[in-house]
Amino acid sequence: MRNFVNLNDLTIQEIMQLIKTSLAYKNEQLDLPTESKNVANLFFENSTRTASSFQMAESKLGWQPIQVNPQTSSTQKGESLSDTLKTLGAIGVDVVVLRHSINDWYEPLIAENSALMPQLVNAGDGNGQHPSQSLLDLMTIYEQFGYFSDLNIRIVGDLAHSRVARSNAEILKRLGAKVSFSGPKQWYPADFDQYGTYQEMDQGLENLDVLMLLRVQHERLAQQDNDDFLETTYHQQFGLTDNRYEQLKDKAIIMHPAPVNRGIEIANELVEADKSRIFTQMANGVYARIAILTSLMEEKVNDININ
Amino acid sequence: MRNFVNLNDLTIQEIMQLIKTSLAYKNEQLDLPTESKNVANLFFENSTRTASSFQMAESKLGWQPIQVNPQTSSTQKGESLSDTLKTLGAIGVDVVVLRHSINDWYEPLIAENSALMPQLVNAGDGNGQHPSQSLLDLMTIYEQFGYFSDLNIRIVGDLAHSRVARSNAEILKRLGAKVSFSGPKQWYPADFDQYGTYQEMDQGLENLDVLMLLRVQHERLAQQDNDDFLETTYHQQFGLTDNRYEQLKDKAIIMHPAPVNRGIEIANELVEADKSRIFTQMANGVYARIAILTSLMEEKVNDININ
Amino acid sequence: MRNFVNLNDLTIQEIMQLIKTSLAYKNEQLDLPTESKNVANLFFENSTRTASSFQMAESKLGWQPIQVNPQTSSTQKGESLSDTLKTLGAIGVDVVVLRHSINDWYEPLIAENSALMPQLVNAGDGNGQHPSQSLLDLMTIYEQFGYFSDLNIRIVGDLAHSRVARSNAEILKRLGAKVSFSGPKQWYPADFDQYGTYQEMDQGLENLDVLMLLRVQHERLAQQDNDDFLETTYHQQFGLTDNRYEQLKDKAIIMHPAPVNRGIEIANELVEADKSRIFTQMANGVYARIAILTSLMEEKVNDININ
Repeated sequence: MRNFVNLNDLTIQEIMQLIKTSLAYKNEQLDLPTESKNVANLFFENSTRTASSFQMAESKLGWQPIQVNPQTSSTQKGESLSDTLKTLGAIGVDVVVLRHSINDWYEPLIAENSALMPQLVNAGDGNGQHPSQSLLDLMTIYEQFGYFSDLNIRIVGDLAHSRVARSNAEILKRLGAKVSFSGPKQWYPADFDQYGTYQEMDQGLENLDVLMLLRVQHERLAQQDNDDFLETTYHQQFGLTDNRYEQLKDKAIIMHPAPVNRGIEIANELVEADKSRIFTQMANGVYARIAILTSLMEEKVNDININ
Repeated sequence: MRNFVNLNDLTIQEIMQLIKTSLAYKNEQLDLPTESKNVANLFFENSTRTASSFQMAESKLGWQPIQVNPQTSSTQKGESLSDTLKTLGAIGVDVVVLRHSINDWYEPLIAENSALMPQLVNAGDGNGQHPSQSLLDLMTIYEQFGYFSDLNIRIVGDLAHSRVARSNAEILKRLGAKVSFSGPKQWYPADFDQYGTYQEMDQGLENLDVLMLLRVQHERLAQQDNDDFLETTYHQQFGLTDNRYEQLKDKAIIMHPAPVNRGIEIANELVEADKSRIFTQMANGVYARIAILTSLMEEKVNDININ
Repeated sequence: MRNFVNLNDLTIQEIMQLIKTSLAYKNEQLDLPTESKNVANLFFENSTRTASSFQMAESKLGWQPIQVNPQTSSTQKGESLSDTLKTLGAIGVDVVVLRHSINDWYEPLIAENSALMPQLVNAGDGNGQHPSQSLLDLMTIYEQFGYFSDLNIRIVGDLAHSRVARSNAEILKRLGAKVSFSGPKQWYPADFDQYGTYQEMDQGLENLDVLMLLRVQHERLAQQDNDDFLETTYHQQFGLTDNRYEQLKDKAIIMHPAPVNRGIEIANELVEADKSRIFTQMANGVYARIAILTSLMEEKVNDININ
């Protein structure tokens, strides 16, 4: 691949290839490449999980990242993102892992078609895509079941603002899973009907294979007039309670992109329960990112020719 | 060791072992281990010295640290310290070097007894412990004298708020040294009587082997109504002046955890005087930290088993 | 060299040696040294380009830098720059790459003549020097022409506040080039007459070999009463327009230290035009910095002897 910015643009074959490669790295069935790339990490937004996970992936690959702190960088002098990235390309950076609050930040950069532009990895954009998170989600489901066809998958919560809900729903449907949604109606975008069906939270829990709970975003927590809303009403209506946990099949799994608001999306004691794959998702994320970074190596990018 | 959080919990044998290992690394009598660990550095508080020293220790060990900037991390999204650390554990971080303003931040984390929790190194907590600093202090004294028994050691200054005063006093007493204290009475905690005796600053200087001066904390400098207090009164009453320096034995040494407020705790020109071991302490700190990090490798931590 | 802080203090022979070494590294005519130094990067001011370029140079050399973030360092506790650097020296840092807003920050540090002081590399000081930028500028000109003698070089813009204008002008004159200046008269220091002649912008463009455009500093943009001044008046009077571009010789080159204010110093579409060497300068900067860092290795610095 030239860039890794959006999982939905990939074919089913390409997605399955990435999933299987990720698992092969995890299970040590595939050797890490001995060649390395020059990589820079640029996080314009807060991140522990994703930034650390990419660093760990780079470390396992033996790549030594250039650390650019956008808070103290020339973007503060008004430099455009394009010029910042072409600067990195000019000094020899092959791959830039980038998170930014702007939706689809990568589109104008790719459209420039400049030989100076490094290969781009989208580590999260606005409330748009978070394709490395989507990949680790898919990897975790596939690791558990070995297939996607006819799996009953419920996605619950703030569907409108989640970076992974739409992308996961679309791809899971393409992969043959049966997707349903629950959560506050005001957070349910009408066009999600194309990917699955809206269901009451307590409807059909006993048939689910995967219960994927979304994070209630901090900024939306702050907007609530009533502080009690989320910890009482939300948790009771849409959260994972002991009672709902018991209704799930023995082989069902619980997922969450984390960080979890304990006691809101999930009862505190259930975060590390047997059916939870929340920390497994994090562990898998490193291997998903290794698969992403190595997939970029296959591309024979034209040697940059600076006159 | 599973964790390195508090020197006082260790036996005299364990402490002596760490001191001797530190010196053996410094004197190249011990080879660095060839295996490596995945380490992350998390500094929630300002630090040049400690953060750089740990980085240098990691560099000498050939460990490539994951750099997490707490200012731009998910702790800003309200994630608990426990969840942040278990996240790092899940992605494969073996050891976390952590500084935090909360006293004893590590206690609830260790009490969780989670297999996901990385091994913890306390790089300073609140006004509680700073065990890697204590170790390098002990190492510097032992390097000079070769023993602790009956050494006359004076600790001077802000005993109440220092991260190392209590810990050093307690351990030095256990090691057989004779500890005394000087400084403003309002900064002398009554229970320090269990470790040694309060003495007037100018009393018995000629008998001291070690004069350990503590930093006057910035926040306390700011609290002074009278700007002149510290530079005139404090320095004259409790600081190291030329006159006091001359009274010390030829083989006595001066120590300070740094950064020094030049002209307050110590006259400017004495910071690098013959008897000063202040920069030696910094040099020794790297080897003390190598000894700490390698001591964690001995622990056969159960492989993390994420279901 | 002991330190690399000011290009103007070097002889012509030393400067030519650095230029040729830089090009030899770029063209793979010289092997990178296999030994390494311990290096720390301290950027007290914003920088993407210079900080990333030094990191890339260090990465190519296989040096693993200590990253010190001055925003969270002990300089915030009031520690002097001298003590911060001697601390780094004490822990084993051989070389410090440092940018600071104070003019000539390195002078008192070098004057101390302390064995604890690491070797210093000036990555930009106040509006004084930026010698690694000057070196890459010289390298880019020499790469193009193979000589300096009698080259017609025009430097345009904010001569008074540029970090490279004075230094470049002085050295280019020493190297035999014919230097001229253009730009707003209020930004032309009278004593620049010693290096070359002030000329109207449109005078003699057809004779130029090098047109070096300086960045209009952000802080000066902000000072303008009239927002339109720079985008209309400045660009028309002193910027590179299509019309001026066409007057340049085919073999003439355009340079700019970047980041470019597109549409102000240079018309947007000309930044990557055939005659532009702006991204080439960035690419060259990595090799210039490798040459700088390796030139410090030749110095047999006295072993630090801490008593």
